This record gives sequence, C-alpha cells and structure tokens, in this order.
Amino acid sequence: MDGDLITMNDLSNEEILSLLDDAERLLPVAHGAEYLPLLQGRLLANMFFEPSTRTRMSFETAMKRLGGDVVNLGDVNTSSAVKGETLYDTMRMVDGYCDMAALRHPRQGAAQYAADACSIPIMNGGDGAGHHPTQTLLDLFTIRQAHGRLEGLKVALVGDLRYGRTVHSLSHALARFDCELLFISPAQLAMPDEIVDDLTGQGAKISMTEDLIGAIPDVDVVYMTRIQKERFPDEDEYAKVAGIYRLCAADLAGVKGDMIIMHPLPRVEEIHPDVDSTRHARYFEQAFNGVVTRMALMCRLLGVSVPGGEV
Amino acid sequence: MDGDLITMNDLSNEEILSLLDDAERLLPVAHGAEYLPLLQGRLLANMFFEPSTRTRMSFETAMKRLGGDVVNLGDVNTSSAVKGETLYDTMRMVDGYCDMAALRHPRQGAAQYAADACSIPIMNGGDGAGHHPTQTLLDLFTIRQAHGRLEGLKVALVGDLRYGRTVHSLSHALARFDCELLFISPAQLAMPDEIVDDLTGQGAKISMTEDLIGAIPDVDVVYMTRIQKERFPDEDEYAKVAGIYRLCAADLAGVKGDMIIMHPLPRVEEIHPDVDSTRHARYFEQAFNGVVTRMALMCRLLGVSVPGGEV
Amino acid sequence: MDGDLITMNDLSNEEILSLLDDAERLLPVAHGAEYLPLLQGRLLANMFFEPSTRTRMSFETAMKRLGGDVVNLGDVNTSSAVKGETLYDTMRMVDGYCDMAALRHPRQGAAQYAADACSIPIMNGGDGAGHHPTQTLLDLFTIRQAHGRLEGLKVALVGDLRYGRTVHSLSHALARFDCELLFISPAQLAMPDEIVDDLTGQGAKISMTEDLIGAIPDVDVVYMTRIQKERFPDEDEYAKVAGIYRLCAADLAGVKGDMIIMHPLPRVEEIHPDVDSTRHARYFEQAFNGVVTRMALMCRLLGVSVPGGEV
Repeated sequence: MDGDLITMNDLSNEEILSLLDDAERLLPVAHGAEYLPLLQGRLLANMFFEPSTRTRMSFETAMKRLGGDVVNLGDVNTSSAVKGETLYDTMRMVDGYCDMAALRHPRQGAAQYAADACSIPIMNGGDGAGHHPTQTLLDLFTIRQAHGRLEGLKVALVGDLRYGRTVHSLSHALARFDCELLFISPAQLAMPDEIVDDLTGQGAKISMTEDLIGAIPDVDVVYMTRIQKERFPDEDEYAKVAGIYRLCAADLAGVKGDMIIMHPLPRVEEIHPDVDSTRHARYFEQAFNGVVTRMALMCRLLGVSVPGGEV
Repeated sequence: MDGDLITMNDLSNEEILSLLDDAERLLPVAHGAEYLPLLQGRLLANMFFEPSTRTRMSFETAMKRLGGDVVNLGDVNTSSAVKGETLYDTMRMVDGYCDMAALRHPRQGAAQYAADACSIPIMNGGDGAGHHPTQTLLDLFTIRQAHGRLEGLKVALVGDLRYGRTVHSLSHALARFDCELLFISPAQLAMPDEIVDDLTGQGAKISMTEDLIGAIPDVDVVYMTRIQKERFPDEDEYAKVAGIYRLCAADLAGVKGDMIIMHPLPRVEEIHPDVDSTRHARYFEQAFNGVVTRMALMCRLLGVSVPGGEV
Repeated sequence: MDGDLITMNDLSNEEILSLLDDAERLLPVAHGAEYLPLLQGRLLANMFFEPSTRTRMSFETAMKRLGGDVVNLGDVNTSSAVKGETLYDTMRMVDGYCDMAALRHPRQGAAQYAADACSIPIMNGGDGAGHHPTQTLLDLFTIRQAHGRLEGLKVALVGDLRYGRTVHSLSHALARFDCELLFISPAQLAMPDEIVDDLTGQGAKISMTEDLIGAIPDVDVVYMTRIQKERFPDEDEYAKVAGIYRLCAADLAGVKGDMIIMHPLPRVEEIHPDVDSTRHARYFEQAFNGVVTRMALMCRLLGVSVPGGEV
C-alpha cells in the first residue's frame, strides 16, 4: 500500500492480515467502551458523489470514534460538480482542506484518478463497476472473526454474481487465502467468464450451481447479495430472477454449526427476518465491522500506530 | 425511564423535575460560557427520516456542546430506505455504529419499534401523529423557568388542537402537574374528545373557548401553534380557519405581568413580530431551551452525571 | 469590525493586514502539521440557504482545524424556510444554538439583516449580488503571499466583470492598497459604470481592454472568472461571449516571472489544465487559503488570540 487504497491489489496478504489484527485491537474503541483519540486533529473528507448511507456513515463513524473529524461533500445534486467542475478540480480543493479522503463515485476508475490528483491518502469507497476494497476488508474481518482463520474455508457467494462489485472483489481476495469458492446464481447472473478464468488461473478451486438449499450444508460461509432491479436492461429479465433466492430459518436445519450468513446490506427479501435470531446470522456484525476495519485502515494510511500493533 | 425516551409516560414526575434541574445546571454550557465535555467520545446518530431543521440542529448542538459528536443519516431521499431497507435493518446498523440515536419518522410507533430493535438508547424526536417528548420537556422547562414552578398554572393552548402532536403531549404533561388547561380553537380544530376524556379522567380542570383575546388576561401561559395547511383534507376547510388567531402587541394590554407567550416554531402569521420585543415573548428562549433539555436528557440516558446533580 | 463581517468596509486596512498576518501564522495548523485547538468548545452554524460546496466546506474545515465544531443547516429544500419561516426567525434560533454563524443567502442584504437579528458574530458568505468578503480576504492573502506585498501591484481582472460579485469586492479592496486595475472583458460584461466611478473617485488607476493575451505580459496578477450562463437573460447573449477568454500554457511565454494566475473556482474552460503545472498557477493554493483566512477571521470575531499575534 503506497498511501492510497484503491483496489485490494494495493495490499499484500501480510498487510491484509496486519490490518485485520489492528481492527481487532480497536474493537473496544469502536464499541465506545474505550476512548482512544488516535486521530485527534485529523480531518477526513467524505466525498460521496453517489449516495451510500451505510458506507458514508461507516467512514464518518470510524473517524469520529478515533477523535478525528469529518467534512462531508453533502448533496451531490447541489455540489460544484453540477456547475461543471471536474473531479480533478474538486479533489485538488479537498487535497488542501483535509488529511485524507474517502471517495464514492459512479464512474469506474474515479478513485485512481483522484489518487493521482491528490497528495493526501485516498480510500476508494466504491467506483461504479470498479472496486470497493473497504467492503472486502470488512468481509474478510467478519469471516476470520467467526472461523479464526481465512485459509481453506469453503465460501458460497449467492445471487447477483454478474453485476455485483462486492462479490468480484471478495472472490479474488478469498482466492488469495486458498478458499474454495462456490458460485450460486441463475445463469443470467453468473460470475463473468473473465473473472472465473482469472481466479482459476490463480489456482482457485471453484464450483458453480443454481441450487442454494442443496449447497449450503457443506459450506462455512454463505454470502447473500441483493439482486438489483436497476442493473437490468429489461423489466422482464428482472422479473425472471427476482426473489429466486430467499433464505429462511427453516432452510438452516442441516448446515454446519459454525456456518455464518453474510450480506453487504441493504437486504430486501433475500434473508427472512427469522434468520436474524439464529446463531448463523452475521450481517449486522458485518456492518459494524465496517467501522472497525476502516478505523484500522485510516490509522495505517495516516501513519498512526494502533497500540499493541505496529506500523 | 428504562433507557429510551419514547413518550412522556416513560418519565415519572420526579424524573421530569430532575431532568429540568439538570438542564438548568447546564445553562452556562449550552450558552457556550463554560466548556464541559461530559460526552466526549460519545456518538449520537441523528436519524431524521423526515426533515426537521430545528429539532435536528437542536439534538446536534446539544451533543456537540457536551463534547460528543454526531453522525447524520443525511438526505432521506437518497438513503438506503429508498433501496427498500426496513427501518429495523437501518436501526440495527446504527445500533452498531453509535452510542445513542435520535429518531424522527413519519410513521406513528416508529420510535418504539426502533427502541425494540436497538440496544442503544433511542430518543423519539417525533413519530408522525404519535409523540414528541423532547418538545414537551423543553416546553415544561420554559414554563418553569418563567414561573418558578409548574404546579397550578393556568395554560391556554391555542390554534390547531386537533392535529397538533405537540399540544396533545403538553396537555397530558401539564395535567400531571395540576395545571388548569384552556383550549382555544375553532370547532373544526378542537382537542379530540378522547384526549379531553382522558385528561378529565386524570382529574384535570379543563375549559374551552373560541375567543383568544377574551381569554388571555386570565392565563399564565399562552401556547400558540401553527395551523398547518397540509393537515387538511380540503383546501376550503383550511381557508375557513387560516389566520383565525393572530396575536399582536396591542392585544396584550390587559394580560398578567408575568404571562408568557410560547410557540414551538416555525410560526407563520400567528404571532406578529411586534410581540417579539415585549416581555411576554418566550418562543426564541423556548427554542434555545431545546438544546439544554436535550443535553440533560442525553447525559441521563448515557448514565453520565451532571455536576451538581445526581443520576 | 464591530463583531460581524458583512462587507470589506467593516475592516480597516490595518485590520485586513493584521488578519492576513494571523492567517500566515495559522498555516501549519491549516495544513494539519500542527494541532492547535484554539476554538475547542465553540460552535459554528453553517447557514447556507443557497448551495456552495467550496465555501461551506472551507468554513467547516477552518472551524474543525481549530478544534471547534459545526452545525449545518442542511438541505435548504427541506429546511424550515420551506414551511414559511422568515430568515429573522431562523437566525434567532441559531443565535441561541451556536457561537457564530456563516451565512450564504440568495438575497442581497440578507447578511446585514441576519447580523441585526443576532447577538453572535455573523460572517457573510455571499448574499446574492451583494458581498462576499471572506473571498476577498483569501484573494488578498494569496496575492500578498506571492508578491510579499499588496501595494502598487498591477492586477488584471478578467471575464464577467458585470455580474461578478467577487471582482467587485476585490477591486475595491485592491484600490485601497493602491493597486493598478486592468479590467478585461467583452463590452456586454464590462465593469458597471457606478463601480468604475466609485473606484476612480477613490483615486484608483484603472484601464480597460477586451484583449487578454495582449495585456498579460505587463501585470503581476491575472484574476480569471467564470462566465455564468445563468446570469444571462437570453441564451443568445450568452453564446456570444461564452469561452471568449481561455488561458493556456502557451499564452504565458512573455509574462513576468512572478506573475500569478488566480480563479475563485469552479473553473469550466477559462483555464486549460496545462496551466496547472506552471509556476504561475495559484488557484488551488487560493482555495486552500480560504481555510487559513477564515481560521484567522473566526479567531478574531470570537476574541481568541492567535499565538504570535495579538487581538
């Protein structure tokens, strides 16, 4: 990592594990049980050119838990971007105002472009069909927290594997830790061939199915995703697959005792609320883990040691 | 109060008075004359699913005056609620991020629902036709500040008594302190029968009139409200009562010397600006009192003692 | 300055220079290299009744760099102003909540009106066709930083001199420091006669031309502005002058070595990106200087001494 986090490729496996270690040390701070203002006096620019309640609030919470402060771009519909300002100019402004920036932008490649424009560290908070590495970090943290390790787990990724940026990044990361991947989707939403080829080239063990219920007794992690209507060019195509995967408590009879169910949220109907109270549900912890992993990341990018760890 | 404030029924009379005492002690802090970071390191989630400038800014100011920080939901039109996320899921997320939450929601019952979902303290900042207890607290504080007591005062509530959540809650609270209530409204906007019955059942002394000017010489408090066009099913019905009560300085000739005029704001034309400079006007102090009473409430809910008081 | 900053006329030349001195001392704090919480415990209300990303973020950054905190009005389309609340009432509320306020409003005169309503210091962040004094302060800071002085410089103001509030205020300020002014614009966008008369009456040396390229070899500062489509009553009138001035690196061959190019931003096409890497470009530093000058101003208005300076 050379000062920015744009894709997971910016991090070696050692760096990933070290960040997860820092995140674990910061748990009491993220829970508010301990006050540790490591980033006091530091300013984060929250540059969300596309709305995202959860990710924006998570970056903001992470910075404030560490005693730092945040300046938000605010409503993009009334921002200077509307007056025709380029992303370059806006980011050069922010480069002078703040100590680091989180960026969400609808255009693929925007985060790297911003990083090239700025001297401050840039964290990619999602750039269109591109990357969303802090989501991957929190996913990995959640998995390691539950299973005590990343290596050699069997992980099912379910739902929209075609358009889902989240599952693409996570698949690559899990392959780096020798996980076995099971892709569960209808044919129209299958993992793109080039990604499958790429993963296979890395030596990943991959299998595919359309059958969720038949597959889950065998896996350590079920990663559900939302099938997003807005991705489909045609309403009819969406109607064919909408609601195809719905997990409820009754489906969990034969699963492993330590299997966990994850979801990047928001969920719509993919997971029935009766799953929430099972020991398998981890999606709310997963959302919380976004805070603690972003705390660890911000400390790292600003060169601030987390007590008990090292930079 | 068991950790949340959803309705005024969550508070005993003793708890109300104790909160008002704490609020009084915090006046120099709210005025910025004293820096007392009692809530340093604590995070408030400001979850306004319906806009409310004054209430949102007041919660935010209260938290920041005490050295804490705030994470805002932001524009609800671009929030995850629009993607179909349930209130339950959004609040479970917030439950992991912050130490307490203020909630405003258009749906009656939303605050209780949120409190059931969350382990952190929830403050109801208004739930549709339901409750708005922090408004009632600041109203009581303002009355007690002016008159030195709550007991036995004669209070006129004026305007829209039918739809006005604020006057419903306040009436109940004043009845608990043996105030005499005078309801002043046109027939179409009269206090609902079930509330009158309920108050009478509590032993409250109640009278009603349509005549504002004739009634005010006799009262200790005149509580004006805005007649909101959007409440009326029919434009003609609104036209009949719009502007029916307009108080100006000349109307105040025969009133008691210590009578105070209150208004939850925003006012439109109910109170003429020439009232602002009379000794009776208290609506701007009332707005300020929203900060100090919310400061007291947040300390109480987080178990933090206000110096000079006790938890 | 009697507690507010509404126009540059509120400041004597000595006060301006003293503010710029304070701003210079605060540079390491604005850069985040030094933590100096001079305004800890103080609250700024950011009252932007008209959106302005750069100015709002700059005020917010300035306050937070000094350890203070900020409460934003938020989206004006959902604010209480929409419910018919007057500016007076909104500002009276804010007067009770915060220690100072920055105001941007579409109506000329709004800032003075707010200052009359409030006891807290008001900073005018732009009131329609009126004034925008903090922009002028940051412009002066940028010029003095580059040239070591304000007196006797030759400054070209370019583009929309008719509607541009920024160039009006800056012209007046530069005239007070005996600068020579060169107005470069098409006839339709010339500096209004009454301003020219006023400046001439002050003894200012003024010349005018339509020719940018011919004029710049002789000047110390080129101040470019955006020609804003929305100012024109007629689309055709705009089309005649749109893009009339476009500066690129090749145009800078014969200019003075220490000549600087400024722009209040956002730029659209007035300055080609190839200018950015020349030693003449100062518009990004200029944006940053908005933070440091506002820091100095806020300390002054709140009566807080900047170490190394004096109040």
